[in-house]
Amino acid sequence: MREVAIVGIGQTPVGEHWDKGLRHLAVEAVLDAMQDARIKRADALYVGNMLGGELASQEHLGVLVADYAGLDGIEAVRVEAACGSAAAALRQAVLGVASGEIDVAIAVGVEKLTELVSKCTTSYLAYAADGDYEASVGLSFVAINALLMQRYMWQYRVGKDEFGAFTVNAHANAVHNPNAMFRRAISREQYARSKMIADPINLLDSSPIADGAAAVIVAAADRAAAFSEKPLRVAACSIGTDTIALDNRQDPLWLKGVERSARKAYQAAGVGPKEIDLFEVHDAFSIMAALSLEASGFAEPGTAVRLANEGKYSLGGELPICTMGGLKGRGHPVGATGLYQVVEAALQLRGEAPAAIQVEGARRAMAQNIGGSGATVITTILETMEGR
Amino acid sequence: MREVAIVGIGQTPVGEHWDKGLRHLAVEAVLDAMQDARIKRADALYVGNMLGGELASQEHLGVLVADYAGLDGIEAVRVEAACGSAAAALRQAVLGVASGEIDVAIAVGVEKLTELVSKCTTSYLAYAADGDYEASVGLSFVAINALLMQRYMWQYRVGKDEFGAFTVNAHANAVHNPNAMFRRAISREQYARSKMIADPINLLDSSPIADGAAAVIVAAADRAAAFSEKPLRVAACSIGTDTIALDNRQDPLWLKGVERSARKAYQAAGVGPKEIDLFEVHDAFSIMAALSLEASGFAEPGTAVRLANEGKYSLGGELPICTMGGLKGRGHPVGATGLYQVVEAALQLRGEAPAAIQVEGARRAMAQNIGGSGATVITTILETMEGR
Repeated sequence: MREVAIVGIGQTPVGEHWDKGLRHLAVEAVLDAMQDARIKRADALYVGNMLGGELASQEHLGVLVADYAGLDGIEAVRVEAACGSAAAALRQAVLGVASGEIDVAIAVGVEKLTELVSKCTTSYLAYAADGDYEASVGLSFVAINALLMQRYMWQYRVGKDEFGAFTVNAHANAVHNPNAMFRRAISREQYARSKMIADPINLLDSSPIADGAAAVIVAAADRAAAFSEKPLRVAACSIGTDTIALDNRQDPLWLKGVERSARKAYQAAGVGPKEIDLFEVHDAFSIMAALSLEASGFAEPGTAVRLANEGKYSLGGELPICTMGGLKGRGHPVGATGLYQVVEAALQLRGEAPAAIQVEGARRAMAQNIGGSGATVITTILETMEGR
Repeated sequence: MREVAIVGIGQTPVGEHWDKGLRHLAVEAVLDAMQDARIKRADALYVGNMLGGELASQEHLGVLVADYAGLDGIEAVRVEAACGSAAAALRQAVLGVASGEIDVAIAVGVEKLTELVSKCTTSYLAYAADGDYEASVGLSFVAINALLMQRYMWQYRVGKDEFGAFTVNAHANAVHNPNAMFRRAISREQYARSKMIADPINLLDSSPIADGAAAVIVAAADRAAAFSEKPLRVAACSIGTDTIALDNRQDPLWLKGVERSARKAYQAAGVGPKEIDLFEVHDAFSIMAALSLEASGFAEPGTAVRLANEGKYSLGGELPICTMGGLKGRGHPVGATGLYQVVEAALQLRGEAPAAIQVEGARRAMAQNIGGSGATVITTILETMEGR
């Protein structure tokens, strides 16, 4: 299996793009990444997207984006794994290049959740859950996460307000990310006074729905220098899964999908959690950040919230997370999120993050994208190419 | 790149499955294929599906099917390319195994188009077209194909009734396929008297919407004997694309996506059209069969309809097509169709087709799955493993 590298990255700002459709956002990110990699053509295009059909009446996004990006005739497909769609698209690009059949591949994630005000996005997001046994009885994603958070607080005796550490950290970093949706800091007081959404989840526990697109170019590692001065080795891009429905899990607070995905990734990269310099965690809700940190091996069960309050996951701490704002601060355009995480990890490793949020000396970054309530998990580990 | 083989096949009957959901159909085909390959586990699952979100309020089918097939924890994603979704899923499975990172992969295509009578399936199928410039102005797929057929009849001076040869052939073969939706023969007279749908396309030019699932197991060719007595080499599984919208094509009667996909496939397999023993063509409408045969190199432009009438594409002819009924006779559960084609091609090469429709001495088969009006095309060439 040949080694694969990321040789180009691109993104649009995250926010409400009322003037652009899915194709325009995706093309913008693709062309941005192609320019970064100094390429005019590629061999394959993988488009991550969740709700194009429901919200924009558009399936078949692979060839649509190829067509509008000027990539006439290119191999192109769409990959979907709910909120994990973008990193799942990256996974296909990596396997394609690893196979030797594809030399240069583009992975782009795109989502437009503010497309139509008359449609209820929350209902459509529930299509990521088990339609017959969760969504159909009214269990939305905020409700699923509320159940998990309630259970966590009870089982580990953690106070509600302690979760604020995640939000405060994410927003503090988002302030400096020009592409983030919410570029303003949040105080612990604001968090504590925030409107309740689904007890105990308040507004500031919840990542915002948004529009956006992010893209990367991958190529064989041994040819990476032809495209980029700062190529990054894809040391791992691994998928692990769990039951789709929460109620089929033995321990709801242990995300087996995260454990499986992270374990595969560590094994592929030949490293452990201690050797990761920064972690773009899937903080769709603050409880998800805590559970992911624990199942990824960055905290013992029940300790992540305390560690967050002690500063372990802040800039300058042992393992900075959400360094560009995370899902909470940057925004969560679901089918694009996984590639925003990877693009941000790449910026950190290239030393190109805005100065105030650059993780000094970062050599190895991990990004983790989740579909559903931990059902599909894609963990990517990137490394700088000097030495190993 | 390591060689890949199909070592197991499975399918459900095609028809109206009012008693089963998407998950049940998919699981049935997956377990059927796993039994055929004598495996209890696999490394990855690729689920092809187009309209699960719109018609069954269910996205995230990768992990849903994995979960309900008892494949707990397996890597799983959904792949979508409109009506080409199933073969696009196979393509990902093939690349995964070719990469060396995945040893055994399952590709399944599933669709349930009769899910809800209150929803208009034709409108949703138009999500495969360009949403902004085709579907939104009322151009449904039958309308797109009617324009193509009209143009073909005018440009090549072909009479409407001559297209009946495709329908008659497809139904004649479907009679003997136990999994086909329409197991009855159609006469030229019945074709000529058939109800007009969108002039000049009549009811018997049109493949029926349907429910169904088909699956294959792929593994490294050098280990194929461990799973199957009759493994089949995947000599090619190649994607080519064209513009998504018809009006952006220079010559609407020349399917560039088909040409590109077929050319890639011939090159990968090291063969030409003359060396193909049977062809499962994407006859969503009879005009599509004609155009695909021409762009694949099985007929000169404008001659496919005449050749069909001369018997070239019937059983016993030079290149039998739709040997198990094709989309017209077997039925067209869109996101599953591409794998029905591959399963049928495999049955032929294994010598396991029903006696009346077995292509004698078949050694090499081609299947071609199309998304949209020729926008995404996946061409698969299978070969028996003895000699080459």
